[in-house]
Amino acid sequence: MKAEIITIGDEIIHGEILDSNSAYIGDKLSSLGIEIAFRTSVGDDLKRIIEAIKLAVERADLVIATGGLGPTNDDLTKKGIVKAFKRNLVFHEDILKKVEEGFRRRGIEMPKINQNQALLPQGAKALPNQYGSAPGIFIQEGKRFFFALPGVPLEMKTILENEILPFLKTRSSRKVVLQKVLRTTGIVESAIYEKLDSVLKAKSPVKLGFLPSFSGVDIKLRITSESEDLARKDISEIEQKIREILNENIYGMDKESLEEVVGRLLSDKKKTISVAESCTGGLIGAKFTSISGSSNYFMDGVISYSNQSKMEFLKIPREIIEKYGAVSEEVAILMAEGIRKVSNTDYGVSATGIAGPTGGTEEKPVGLVYIGFAHENDSYARKFIFGGDRQTIRERTAQAALNLVRLFIEYGVHRP
Amino acid sequence: MKAEIITIGDEIIHGEILDSNSAYIGDKLSSLGIEIAFRTSVGDDLKRIIEAIKLAVERADLVIATGGLGPTNDDLTKKGIVKAFKRNLVFHEDILKKVEEGFRRRGIEMPKINQNQALLPQGAKALPNQYGSAPGIFIQEGKRFFFALPGVPLEMKTILENEILPFLKTRSSRKVVLQKVLRTTGIVESAIYEKLDSVLKAKSPVKLGFLPSFSGVDIKLRITSESEDLARKDISEIEQKIREILNENIYGMDKESLEEVVGRLLSDKKKTISVAESCTGGLIGAKFTSISGSSNYFMDGVISYSNQSKMEFLKIPREIIEKYGAVSEEVAILMAEGIRKVSNTDYGVSATGIAGPTGGTEEKPVGLVYIGFAHENDSYARKFIFGGDRQTIRERTAQAALNLVRLFIEYGVHRP
Repeated sequence: MKAEIITIGDEIIHGEILDSNSAYIGDKLSSLGIEIAFRTSVGDDLKRIIEAIKLAVERADLVIATGGLGPTNDDLTKKGIVKAFKRNLVFHEDILKKVEEGFRRRGIEMPKINQNQALLPQGAKALPNQYGSAPGIFIQEGKRFFFALPGVPLEMKTILENEILPFLKTRSSRKVVLQKVLRTTGIVESAIYEKLDSVLKAKSPVKLGFLPSFSGVDIKLRITSESEDLARKDISEIEQKIREILNENIYGMDKESLEEVVGRLLSDKKKTISVAESCTGGLIGAKFTSISGSSNYFMDGVISYSNQSKMEFLKIPREIIEKYGAVSEEVAILMAEGIRKVSNTDYGVSATGIAGPTGGTEEKPVGLVYIGFAHENDSYARKFIFGGDRQTIRERTAQAALNLVRLFIEYGVHRP
Repeated sequence: MKAEIITIGDEIIHGEILDSNSAYIGDKLSSLGIEIAFRTSVGDDLKRIIEAIKLAVERADLVIATGGLGPTNDDLTKKGIVKAFKRNLVFHEDILKKVEEGFRRRGIEMPKINQNQALLPQGAKALPNQYGSAPGIFIQEGKRFFFALPGVPLEMKTILENEILPFLKTRSSRKVVLQKVLRTTGIVESAIYEKLDSVLKAKSPVKLGFLPSFSGVDIKLRITSESEDLARKDISEIEQKIREILNENIYGMDKESLEEVVGRLLSDKKKTISVAESCTGGLIGAKFTSISGSSNYFMDGVISYSNQSKMEFLKIPREIIEKYGAVSEEVAILMAEGIRKVSNTDYGVSATGIAGPTGGTEEKPVGLVYIGFAHENDSYARKFIFGGDRQTIRERTAQAALNLVRLFIEYGVHRP
C-alpha cells in the first residue's frame, strides 16, 4: 500500500508552526509497513487544496489529510473534498446532536456556525472526535482510501489511533516492520556513537538511527523482514549488545518517558517522594504529576524560589544559605532533606541552580545546577553544568533530577 | 513570484525528524512577499525525486529543494536534478579544490567519495557552503529559478541567507508583507468567529486567519501591499475593530506568551505572587518561572498533591476538605488565601481539579477545575470544565490561572 499525507493550513506553509502532524502520521504508517510516497502541504487556498487532493488520490492508494476542518471560513478542506471527489454535502442530524452535546457538557452555548460540522460529503463516513467538534471524514473509492482529520494534534492522533490504524492493520501487506527505541540520558550522542563502534560495524539487517534532544539521545532500531520471528530475533540480538555497552544510561523504551519509568519504579517499590524546587520552579513536580496515578507516590512539593521560603517551608538555617549561597551542594542537600522530612515521604529530591540568562558569575556560571537526593539513611547532591538557554537548562535539570531518583532505585546508592 | 519547497530524505518521510527546513524557508520567503504554493517531501527514492522536481518546476517560478546532496549513495538529489532537467554532469576543478581544502582545514584526509561533489549539472552554478562539503546548486531556466541545498540546517540556512535571499530580494516584487498576531484565551474559535462577523464581512485587504490551540486562539492579521504606510494603516484599523469586540479576551501580540504578559504586569505594578497547585502539580509555577527575571515577582509555591500538605503548608482545616472535597470552590479559595498568607505576597493563585483520566464522578467529572485567587481585600474562585486528555486539562488549567491573574490586574475585580 502506497500512501500520501497532505497537511493543510497557512500556518504550515508560512512556517509558523512545524508540521508535526505529518511526522506523526508518517511514523505510524511506516511502522505498519506502509510506504509513504509523498507528503504535500498547501495553504488555506481552495484551488490548491483541490489540486493536492486530486493528485494524491491519483498517485497513492491511501491518502490522509489533516487541517482545515474547523467551522470557520479559512477552513476549506471539506469544500476541497467535495470538489475533488465531485460529491455534494449532506446534512447529518446525528452528528449535529453530538456536536451540540459536546458544547453542553462544557457548559458553553454552541455558536450557530458549528452547525456546519454536521455536513459531510455524500457517501462519506464520519469518524468520531472525542476531543473536538469536527469529526474526521472517510471516503472509500474502490481500493482507494481517503481520510481527512482535524489539524489539532490531540484530535488528529486520537482519531488516527482509534479509527484509522486498526482499519489499516487489517489491510496492509504481510511484511513486518519492527521498530524499537532505546532511550538514553546522561550521555552525549558522539560518546554513544564511539561506544557502539563494534555494533555499528557489524553487518546486521537492523538499521540504527540516533535522535538527540535536550533530554537525552534516542537510539532507534528498525528492521523490515518477511518473518516476525526473525525480525524479533535480529532486533533482540542487537538490543542486547547495546544494553551491555550502554547499561544504566538506558532508562526506557519506545515512547516511555523518564517520569513514567520513575513513577513505575516508585509504585512497584511502594515508595513515596516529594520535591523541593528552586531553578525549575515547579517543572519537576509537573513532570511527576503528568502521570496518571502519580498521587499514589507523589506527595508534595515546595517551589522555594525565594530564600524566605527555603527557610520557612524547608527549615533551612539562614546561616547556611548566607555562607554557601542558595546555589550550592549544601543547600541542595538540605532542601532534599527538608522536603522529605516535612512531607514525611521515603525520598526527597531537590534542584537549585542558575537557569540564566542573567545571574551567572565566574564562580557560579549560568547552567550550574545542584540536584539533591535524600532517603532514609543518606543524602547527597550531584553537580551539573548544563548548556543551552533558560528553557533547556530547566528541562535538563528536571530530567537529571528524575534520573537521579531512577539510578538510586534501580542501582542502589549513587553517591557521586 | 510563486514558490514550491521540496524536502528530500527518508528521515522526513518516516517522521523521525520534524521538517524544520521547510518551515524556515517558508518563513523567509513569506516575509519577502513570495507566495508558497506547495510544499512537497519525498524519501530517498530517485523516481519520486525526479517526479517531485519536474512537477514543482512546472507549477512554480521558484523551487528550493533541500536534502540528499551528500556524497553517500542514499543522497540522490543530484541524480534527480540531472534527470528532471535532462542535463549532464560536468566536473569542476575549482569545486574539488575547495572541498579538499575544507577537509585539510579540519585535519582530515578527504575520502575519495567526496570527489563526487565536484560534479554539477551542466549550466548550473555552485553556491559556496562554508560549513560543509556539499555546495548548493542553482539552475536558471528563463524566468524560473531552481535551487538545491544540503539538508543540514546550519548549511541550508547559511547558503539561503548569503546566496539566495539577496538574489530574490532584487527580483521579487516591491510588495510589503506585514503580519500581526492577536492572542486570545478563554473563548472558543467559533465564538470569536461569530463575534467578528462584521469585521470578516467588511472588505479589507487584510487577511484574517485563526489558529486554535489548547491555550487559546491566535488571530492572524496579514497584508500584502504596495506601501508600508498603507499596510500599517490597514492593519491598525482592523486591529482596533477586533480589540473593541474581543476586548479582554486578547492578552498579547505576536509571539508573546501569557506568562510573559502576566510577568510584565506584575513587574510594572511591583506586585508579588505565590501559587498553590494541586492538579497542575507545579505547572503554573513552571510557567511563571520560565520567564527570566521572574524572581522579582514570583516568590514561592506549594504543590499540595496530598490533602496532608493542603493542611500542613496551607493551613486548610481538615473539616473543610472533608465537607466540600479537595476539588471544590471552598478549597480553591482557601488554597489561594493560604499560600498568599504563608508566603506574604500581594497575590495568591491556586488550582484544584480532576485531570483524569480516572477519578471523575457524575458530580465531579474529569476536567472539573476550580481556580482560586486571593488579594489584599478579597478572594474568589472560578469554576471551569475543560475538555481534552490529562495533559491538555493541566495545560488549560495553568493558562486559565495565569489569565485570572491578568484579568484582575488589568480589569480590576473579576469576581465570577
